[in-house]
Amino acid sequence: MLTPDEAERIARTFKALGDPTRVRLLSLIAASGDGEACICDLTEPVGLSQPTVSHHMKLLVDAGLTTREQRGRWAYYRIVTDALEQASRTLRP
Amino acid sequence: MLTPDEAERIARTFKALGDPTRVRLLSLIAASGDGEACICDLTEPVGLSQPTVSHHMKLLVDAGLTTREQRGRWAYYRIVTDALEQASRTLRP
Repeated sequence: MLTPDEAERIARTFKALGDPTRVRLLSLIAASGDGEACICDLTEPVGLSQPTVSHHMKLLVDAGLTTREQRGRWAYYRIVTDALEQASRTLRP
Repeated sequence: MLTPDEAERIARTFKALGDPTRVRLLSLIAASGDGEACICDLTEPVGLSQPTVSHHMKLLVDAGLTTREQRGRWAYYRIVTDALEQASRTLRP
């Protein structure tokens, strides 16, 4: 059985994905050739301002679903491949 | 790219798991021999009343993560094996 701490951590990961904009942002990064995307390429497809997208991306980074790297003017986000799989592992029959 | 409707539906699935009690309930059902559990076996491990557990389970059923079957006095819940996998599919690099 999951400890309360483990359940907390797993729920935090899923909670970050309980929002359609963040689902779309993560799917955009997933669909990019190398599993990485510049914030400059994320704003237009979701139709939101850069500060709003940055805020959503911060929640995904905090949940461990993506990493963030600043390169010059732009932030680049990369999917943490195993994060969703690890959160899902104990929830399969 | 995901349509807004698809993103909504996926986010709803994850939102249901954005709560540690529901994560524990689903993991308990997953850990049961046949991927099914009676509500009578779920209340004690999570230390909550049956009405509270029923409420959490209703949210998991509504999100498509489990099914519910009433047999005599008790409700039985079964994991929808593919639900989490389907929600996760577009979020992998």
